[in-house]
Amino acid sequence: MDLAEIGTRLELHDLYTAYAACLDTDALEGWPEFFTEDCRYRITSAENYEAGLPIGLIYATSKNMLRDRVSALRQANIYEPQRYRHLITGVAIAGRDEGGLEVTASFLVVRTMQDGAMTVFAVGRYIDRVVRGPAGWLFARKDVVLDSRRIDTLLAIPL
Amino acid sequence: MDLAEIGTRLELHDLYTAYAACLDTDALEGWPEFFTEDCRYRITSAENYEAGLPIGLIYATSKNMLRDRVSALRQANIYEPQRYRHLITGVAIAGRDEGGLEVTASFLVVRTMQDGAMTVFAVGRYIDRVVRGPAGWLFARKDVVLDSRRIDTLLAIPL
Amino acid sequence: MDLAEIGTRLELHDLYTAYAACLDTDALEGWPEFFTEDCRYRITSAENYEAGLPIGLIYATSKNMLRDRVSALRQANIYEPQRYRHLITGVAIAGRDEGGLEVTASFLVVRTMQDGAMTVFAVGRYIDRVVRGPAGWLFARKDVVLDSRRIDTLLAIPL
Repeated sequence: MDLAEIGTRLELHDLYTAYAACLDTDALEGWPEFFTEDCRYRITSAENYEAGLPIGLIYATSKNMLRDRVSALRQANIYEPQRYRHLITGVAIAGRDEGGLEVTASFLVVRTMQDGAMTVFAVGRYIDRVVRGPAGWLFARKDVVLDSRRIDTLLAIPL
Repeated sequence: MDLAEIGTRLELHDLYTAYAACLDTDALEGWPEFFTEDCRYRITSAENYEAGLPIGLIYATSKNMLRDRVSALRQANIYEPQRYRHLITGVAIAGRDEGGLEVTASFLVVRTMQDGAMTVFAVGRYIDRVVRGPAGWLFARKDVVLDSRRIDTLLAIPL
Repeated sequence: MDLAEIGTRLELHDLYTAYAACLDTDALEGWPEFFTEDCRYRITSAENYEAGLPIGLIYATSKNMLRDRVSALRQANIYEPQRYRHLITGVAIAGRDEGGLEVTASFLVVRTMQDGAMTVFAVGRYIDRVVRGPAGWLFARKDVVLDSRRIDTLLAIPL
């Protein structure tokens, strides 16, 4: 493994770590900055993903749509205070071409409610495409594939 | 740390990531391919492991036994559909000799049932020996040491 | 990314992996050895951390205080046998100066009781300062910032 390859792997580790930290510190306004302008972002179930169904629980086809989503979340700020903790493991390069990399990873999100109750909120995998932007790697596509078909309908934050 | 050592560490990261992905995508037929022909695979409890008791909940002493186990699981395919998600962290080289490496890691497995309920299914550590095969690292020994003494008797998939 | 930087990152990975292993194998006497003599160790809630409140659930300002804590835990060894499993992800260098590094990471701790019940015991992040000691990196400061305000009052082990 040469130095360039090692560097790429550690950069990907940094990308997912920063992504998780952005969400977990409620810095949602920074979340769209992890994506390209014409990105595709989707949350779907493993069942639907494997069946090839395109529609997800959340579906966005541009960075602007992600910005709109953050605005909506902020304005609808009526939910009970809660915290999320993303644990992301197993970041792997699943494919590569001249334009970018296909990257997969596993995630687990624990939600902590105001009263201190902690629950496993979501588990699944990311099936992503990343490309090099001027300041580092960006998500050109992010499929958040949940192991569960059931997801909290009050889904408050991005995954 | 030199380039060879760094490469080895990232290869081990890849090994555990691929191992988890194999199980989590239900690609069980590929699971024995992570092992040497004369491997030893065992699932046991921390209590029994620390007491030096050799027998485990599952005990196999060859790759063929692992293949048999997969066949049995496929034929007994009467269980409720469920998904597993392995999060593996803390991969570390605990020892090395001319023949291979002693490697430890922590794991957490979340099981998601058909109705969407998610539970912590297993936590523990891997205490493994890996050797270089023609196409990469293989497990010559894998001890799956569960923190819990209690394990679902319908244990459906390998850990 | 150059070889020195890559080496540092893998060394930090090793530090957190060894730290988790120390706690998870109940090798508590080794725990203070991860710290400098004049370290600060604190467990606090995210709420208090963000409010800038200095006091924590646990607060120590030297390695000797950590040793005392271990002694107290051993002498008060009246609790139900239990096991802990730390999963630490997202180790990142958040800052650096001549004296050391500011490092953050996410953690999840699962507790397994004698009867086999597994629960998410704690989630949160480490906000640490590490410095180079004679035999490797040491924690000069470790803030264990819990997502939850509620913590088991019988908090048995360090986090």
